[in-house]
Amino acid sequence: MKIQKIKVKEIKGGITAPEGFLAAGINCGLRKSKLDLALIYSIEKCIGVAAFTKNLFQAAPIIVSKKNIKNDIQAIVVNSGNANAATGKRGIADAEKMCKITAQYLNLKSNNVLVFSTGVIGEYLEMNKISNGIKILVPLLSKKEHSLAAQAILTTDKIIKEIAVEFQIRNKKVKIGAMAKGSGMIAPNMATMLAFISSDVNIEKNLLKKLFKSAIENSFNLISVDGDMSTNDSVVFITNKMANNPEINEKTPKYIDIFYTHLLYIMQKLSRLIVKDGEGVTKLIEVSVKNAKTQRKAIKIARCVANSLLVKTAIYGEDPNWGRVIASIGASGEKFIPEKVIIKFGNYILFKNNTPIKFKEEKVKKYLKNDEIKIIIDLQEGKESTTFITGDLTEEYIRINAKYRT
Amino acid sequence: MKIQKIKVKEIKGGITAPEGFLAAGINCGLRKSKLDLALIYSIEKCIGVAAFTKNLFQAAPIIVSKKNIKNDIQAIVVNSGNANAATGKRGIADAEKMCKITAQYLNLKSNNVLVFSTGVIGEYLEMNKISNGIKILVPLLSKKEHSLAAQAILTTDKIIKEIAVEFQIRNKKVKIGAMAKGSGMIAPNMATMLAFISSDVNIEKNLLKKLFKSAIENSFNLISVDGDMSTNDSVVFITNKMANNPEINEKTPKYIDIFYTHLLYIMQKLSRLIVKDGEGVTKLIEVSVKNAKTQRKAIKIARCVANSLLVKTAIYGEDPNWGRVIASIGASGEKFIPEKVIIKFGNYILFKNNTPIKFKEEKVKKYLKNDEIKIIIDLQEGKESTTFITGDLTEEYIRINAKYRT
Repeated sequence: MKIQKIKVKEIKGGITAPEGFLAAGINCGLRKSKLDLALIYSIEKCIGVAAFTKNLFQAAPIIVSKKNIKNDIQAIVVNSGNANAATGKRGIADAEKMCKITAQYLNLKSNNVLVFSTGVIGEYLEMNKISNGIKILVPLLSKKEHSLAAQAILTTDKIIKEIAVEFQIRNKKVKIGAMAKGSGMIAPNMATMLAFISSDVNIEKNLLKKLFKSAIENSFNLISVDGDMSTNDSVVFITNKMANNPEINEKTPKYIDIFYTHLLYIMQKLSRLIVKDGEGVTKLIEVSVKNAKTQRKAIKIARCVANSLLVKTAIYGEDPNWGRVIASIGASGEKFIPEKVIIKFGNYILFKNNTPIKFKEEKVKKYLKNDEIKIIIDLQEGKESTTFITGDLTEEYIRINAKYRT
Repeated sequence: MKIQKIKVKEIKGGITAPEGFLAAGINCGLRKSKLDLALIYSIEKCIGVAAFTKNLFQAAPIIVSKKNIKNDIQAIVVNSGNANAATGKRGIADAEKMCKITAQYLNLKSNNVLVFSTGVIGEYLEMNKISNGIKILVPLLSKKEHSLAAQAILTTDKIIKEIAVEFQIRNKKVKIGAMAKGSGMIAPNMATMLAFISSDVNIEKNLLKKLFKSAIENSFNLISVDGDMSTNDSVVFITNKMANNPEINEKTPKYIDIFYTHLLYIMQKLSRLIVKDGEGVTKLIEVSVKNAKTQRKAIKIARCVANSLLVKTAIYGEDPNWGRVIASIGASGEKFIPEKVIIKFGNYILFKNNTPIKFKEEKVKKYLKNDEIKIIIDLQEGKESTTFITGDLTEEYIRINAKYRT
């Protein structure tokens, strides 16, 4: 599929923007005052695809949703405040119960419901609060409540993350909506990150799987906040096909491109929002590796630089300390020709021909005062490029994480 | 070789403790007031072995010393304040010049001298200051000045790191002395870490190489402060054989054990000192993985947990948040049986049978007030174990590194 160079049309409505979707969010008592329980519902059955954490300790809801995603999906229930992870058999029973109760009130089968949890690891869910919460949530479901749902899935996040887009497939309006959370434990192969994407697009399921996977590789798997991988990460896409567009399938390459462009747009936008809202992050850092021999190598080097605490703290300190970038490139384990490597901060060349380039310190320092910083590494050895997104590392990150649980 | 269970005899004298070694350290003007130039000298020729950073951007002095270590060695010159890294051909010429000048004043050949630099990356050395410094250093060489030499190689370190031991090889006294630096950019495969080890032991060179490599694997390669790998890491061992002990070789397994036990003792002690003095570190964390199927797996899991920012900040916050340990184990990419994993903080079992264990929060919190914390992960699947050493992550680390260069 090709990414189209078009101006994407954003619309309001978040997760409930597509036809037939309703949502609600409340505080059910798991957390003191913040919203902590969200419900997403489609009036028609959906096909769904999902990507789950590769962490080998998988949270109970992951185990349950992995099973249920194979069926038609009509509801997603999510709590924050408690990850229901490392909770053994009781945790799985609780996750199944969340599906069952939701199904009961919505007149569905348990296996038409997906369940997610995010928050502290290693504590059992307070199921009485959740049961009661679901009962309250169902009559609140509406088109309007999307932001409350988006709010209820947040943990240490400071901002609500939602987005929706609209496009045409042969005269039919198609919409995609989304909401996400995530600000710590963010690393490739996802993180303590949940993203729910709803749509009314009519698309063939195997094709959807393929496009979904590719879009994740090019968005959520190219970000990090702290390099830690969570037990609960998930990205879910469900569509009820209510847009009634002619089916997008392998025979409609043009439609594939249109759809993929918008799906990727949504995922990349959410990815950036997650990094920007990263714990303690004051600056977003784009690490671009250009002209590598392979994509894999470009990603490995970019990730190594983006995860370097020394690079992250240098950017926080607005210090043009490109030496730390050099050290990180060299630590990636990938081979390259030092004499060919060019390092730029924004438009300023700092290193070339294996030699430091004299630069106007004041100008580069001024550049580093921006909220978004570009580090560009040109390997000059091939044609593959990538951009990895991370944030700076600050005292605030330490403060948040030294005190999270208690 | 077997590690002997003996009480190692520590002696005074650091790097100059062995017969025939002299040292000196001064401020030559690279840094404002701190000492910045050290010289180690042996009155007799030494055989030497060394391990260098695996970072692909290697600093100029690494390139030069890698070549020279093949010859007999009689002097080591080291500057701090400037790493002479990413400095191209001029950097290499400068490193060679440091050897040449040192050789001149000591009446040696250039290739009998090793050279090392540590400090900021990407700036040229001020060679006039260094030339003049070496001239001043030579007449200051003495047995007594070992601590000044050890001080002159420090950068952000707060404490001088030196140690010496003495043991017997068939009625002959043998000594090993050492000094090291390192407090940030510390990760497996070494880090911005320099360690110089001197000895008067008579040992066969190929055997020495083997023992040296094994001791590094079990000490310096099992520590981390921030997961970053430097361009300048080096560990060097030189011996002038002046102890006149019968040669230690493959035919003297008992002597091998005695020597290896002391060499490993020195390296492990320096490793712990480096972590304890890690940038911003307030607590040393020992991550032990027990009963793994392979050593490689034990190390990979231990390293992943030890490098987790969330684990490091939890320990800093004295928070028994074992859920983050679980998440890190799962993120290591290694397979294990979740039901078998046991997690302990000190003597307190927190997780077992894939289920949280009720523990007295107050007692564990009290344990976490200690300066040294043990995290024990028992996989219950094999017989291999390892211990990886790291430090907590604090606001102070951020402050130091956001402001280092400027």
